[in-house]
Amino acid sequence: MNNYVKIFDTTLRDGEQSPGATMTSAEKLEVARSLARMGVDVIEAGFPAASPDDLEAVRMIANEVGNPKPGQADAEVPIIAGLARANKLDIDNAWEAVRGAQKPRIHTFLATSPIHMKHKLKMDPEEVVGRVSEMVTYARGLCADVEFSPEDAGRSDPEFLYLVLGEAIKAGATTLNIPDTVGYMTPDEYFKLIEGIIKNTPLMHEGITVSVHCHDDLGMATANTLAGIRAGARQAEVTINGIGERAGNTSLEEVVMTLKTRHPAFGLETGIETQQLARVSKLVSNYTGIVVQPNKAIVGANAFAHEAGIHQDGMLKHSLTYEIMRPEDVGVNQTKLVLGKHSGRHALRARLAEMGHSLEESELDQVFARFKKLADRKKVITDADLEALVVDEFYRPREVFSLEGLQVSCGTLAMPTATVRLRGPDGKIYTHASLGTGPVDATYKAIDGIVNVPNALLEFNVHAITEGFDALGEVTVRIRSKNGLHTMDAQKEVEFARIYGGHGADTDIIVASAKAYLSAINKLIVAQTEGRQPVQYEYGVMLG
Amino acid sequence: MNNYVKIFDTTLRDGEQSPGATMTSAEKLEVARSLARMGVDVIEAGFPAASPDDLEAVRMIANEVGNPKPGQADAEVPIIAGLARANKLDIDNAWEAVRGAQKPRIHTFLATSPIHMKHKLKMDPEEVVGRVSEMVTYARGLCADVEFSPEDAGRSDPEFLYLVLGEAIKAGATTLNIPDTVGYMTPDEYFKLIEGIIKNTPLMHEGITVSVHCHDDLGMATANTLAGIRAGARQAEVTINGIGERAGNTSLEEVVMTLKTRHPAFGLETGIETQQLARVSKLVSNYTGIVVQPNKAIVGANAFAHEAGIHQDGMLKHSLTYEIMRPEDVGVNQTKLVLGKHSGRHALRARLAEMGHSLEESELDQVFARFKKLADRKKVITDADLEALVVDEFYRPREVFSLEGLQVSCGTLAMPTATVRLRGPDGKIYTHASLGTGPVDATYKAIDGIVNVPNALLEFNVHAITEGFDALGEVTVRIRSKNGLHTMDAQKEVEFARIYGGHGADTDIIVASAKAYLSAINKLIVAQTEGRQPVQYEYGVMLG
Repeated sequence: MNNYVKIFDTTLRDGEQSPGATMTSAEKLEVARSLARMGVDVIEAGFPAASPDDLEAVRMIANEVGNPKPGQADAEVPIIAGLARANKLDIDNAWEAVRGAQKPRIHTFLATSPIHMKHKLKMDPEEVVGRVSEMVTYARGLCADVEFSPEDAGRSDPEFLYLVLGEAIKAGATTLNIPDTVGYMTPDEYFKLIEGIIKNTPLMHEGITVSVHCHDDLGMATANTLAGIRAGARQAEVTINGIGERAGNTSLEEVVMTLKTRHPAFGLETGIETQQLARVSKLVSNYTGIVVQPNKAIVGANAFAHEAGIHQDGMLKHSLTYEIMRPEDVGVNQTKLVLGKHSGRHALRARLAEMGHSLEESELDQVFARFKKLADRKKVITDADLEALVVDEFYRPREVFSLEGLQVSCGTLAMPTATVRLRGPDGKIYTHASLGTGPVDATYKAIDGIVNVPNALLEFNVHAITEGFDALGEVTVRIRSKNGLHTMDAQKEVEFARIYGGHGADTDIIVASAKAYLSAINKLIVAQTEGRQPVQYEYGVMLG
Repeated sequence: MNNYVKIFDTTLRDGEQSPGATMTSAEKLEVARSLARMGVDVIEAGFPAASPDDLEAVRMIANEVGNPKPGQADAEVPIIAGLARANKLDIDNAWEAVRGAQKPRIHTFLATSPIHMKHKLKMDPEEVVGRVSEMVTYARGLCADVEFSPEDAGRSDPEFLYLVLGEAIKAGATTLNIPDTVGYMTPDEYFKLIEGIIKNTPLMHEGITVSVHCHDDLGMATANTLAGIRAGARQAEVTINGIGERAGNTSLEEVVMTLKTRHPAFGLETGIETQQLARVSKLVSNYTGIVVQPNKAIVGANAFAHEAGIHQDGMLKHSLTYEIMRPEDVGVNQTKLVLGKHSGRHALRARLAEMGHSLEESELDQVFARFKKLADRKKVITDADLEALVVDEFYRPREVFSLEGLQVSCGTLAMPTATVRLRGPDGKIYTHASLGTGPVDATYKAIDGIVNVPNALLEFNVHAITEGFDALGEVTVRIRSKNGLHTMDAQKEVEFARIYGGHGADTDIIVASAKAYLSAINKLIVAQTEGRQPVQYEYGVMLG
């Protein structure tokens, strides 16, 4: 049996389709680029049948990230997969989306558990077998690389699973993915399931990759995934930070770092450059607005933290006794103080390059200007500050409305009041003042007074990026359009309203809040008016 | 073998000693009360030898939570445990702290792994065996219930472990706890370790409880804990929200809900009333300032979340297909809209009682006044809002300085400025104005101008408690005293500066920020001046 475990990242599909994790196409592309750079073997880029938007985002990733850059024809590229229910329309959509990649994959699925077949599919087991055979054959007619998943495998009858999986192999599937869809299993149960499948599935042979896909509802996704790998699975479906519906999917970083840290026990390899884990984790957290708790394994802020006040001496002694991984192995930078007021353009460029950002001259100019402004207010600029600046500067959605000015007064003695000045898509300047229950509410009401896109604020978070009173504040918000676009959940087959996340950074958290809200609002407007360019506004009214 | 698994909660010891999770004695007491109400079997209340403060907090918990309330002499109370290194002074301190409880326990430990014995203890294996025997005997002379842990058991030689544990039994230990101190093991390895210990430890008998204690560095603490239980362990050492050093300890909620959800597979019981899990999780998160990520199993905000827009119909159909636990089983309240502007005192009292808060008349008056003020500004008051109000009103530390007024102006157009008015411990009013890099910085600088207690801001977080623009904002901060008290880590034997968390809620997040900072500052001042009452101040100077 080979000792290489393929890492199949589904952050952009199972992660992104979970409520609140919506990313813009530009953000998805950037995440896909980072995953490819880090060495992910398969990127599941989305569920193309969900909406034309979703299809387009997958196509963009397939075309750009799924092909070598000009002049690097020999470079390895990841497989780009698209998800499809077991019907021709979905499979056609998936193929349309991924066909531009050098290594395209269609991933189709059908539920096999009694409860799903009866209540969701309303199909007999025989019909399920027939449909799998037919649809895998159909997909294989379009694409040489087909993956099949029996949904809710964890609650399926093993004998029936062997039968269905055997049919899938016969029809041409080359990867069989075994999902514990509801996060119900224990490691020993999952080990036995995978072991049984490898042993008992008809036509099983060395060319077939068995894949594991777990959910964390009982907190055991990582252990289950590794149990499946021990039983012979050689592909692990995972997400960055373990994001995903409910309690989320298996964490990429936990699986990869266990295989690395416990290499003598497992004897298995992955292609992941682990030094990039911390950065990709931060990127996904920023884009989705889903925070990582401090005590999260591998990528939590405390995962490598030591008590304040322990001397270097003590650290060295204790690193032997209490550390099983080194922070630098996952890209946690311990030398945090890097640049200050007198640092030049050259130092900034060098530091950004070390952090993995190779900017064009004009981009560097922009960041340098922001850097200088920040250095006037803040003594020491850390990597975290720089990361926030770069994200804030370049990974913002297209600006329909931009913030030109904000003035706020609040406190216990007065009514919170905000005055906002925005530049609209027509280039005109709009101003509006509003009262609110607090400074953020007042600011958002003032913005609403100009923009007038009905939405509901679902979540609002601020945190200080770095230690100290003068830290940059980072705000993430999530809003839901009240009359906007819908997308569809592949498994539950239900439509739901899109949620848009926004992100802003400033030393003034009210300014950062305004930026974050505007960035979410801009995403929402762009999504609603896509294909109807240019966006036209009259004061407070979108002209379709 | 019996089918009852004792839940040993170490939130107040292994959880609290982790950096940044420091709680005041009042907060610790409230957490201990909640744990007892929820049915925890053993509460490890602290490490009494760390400092006189720590000893005092454990003693208070032992006396109050470790004994039945007046008039309820037959009520079950939890065991109260105190941790001690394997030396007489620590054991004396632990006994002094827990002896007031109806069921006291001394928990002592000594490392048994080659790396710990050599680098940390600098002791031969023979010396370790001798010390364990001697110190367990000594502890047993004081207390009938003694637990022994071979630290870093996961990396110890199993044969040596059997020997040490046999000596511990001979010396009178009745609980043997097997820690995977560095979070290194996999479930199958941990299963074999526990199985081997039960089978091979000399003198092992039915009166001995084997206990499991895991860390989550590779994301497998819950699976390891359950593997140990399957192998025959009948006590699980866990923390609320899985807090603890580095990636934290095993989550109480994950272990308990797996045993409940998968009852047919495990056939085991716990004494936990699971409907209280969500509330206790929130309490610990508030007090420690350690956030729970949305995709955290069981207690994360998304653990039971469904996509917006799914109709009730769909929900019912899907609850069969995609839910393995019901939100009400863990106390997640789905009917969020409860009270409004016209709700009376009676409705408030009833709702609070349902939420588990039985307040005195005078306390209810206070909450009702806050409630009315909030209802003027916010249309709908949810359970989450109420919880925040109650916490804000009653679980604040003793107020040395209190906020009398705050006025802030900020934005892109002006220099952020805050004017603060505080009432000092002398009853006098102090005011101070300050510029800052943002409104929070300006506010904190203005407070510092009055209070003048040197400290470093380590963390600053804001989130909206409920959906909607007019939500209550909840701020948590963590500060470290620059010339303050130290405490000691039991295992690493290093002293570190105490970190103090503060918490504040208001619809104005700048006001909430001021409250949170003041609450942390007040904790710090109380800790530094304990035993030197009353605290005396002259403008900006603490008089010892």
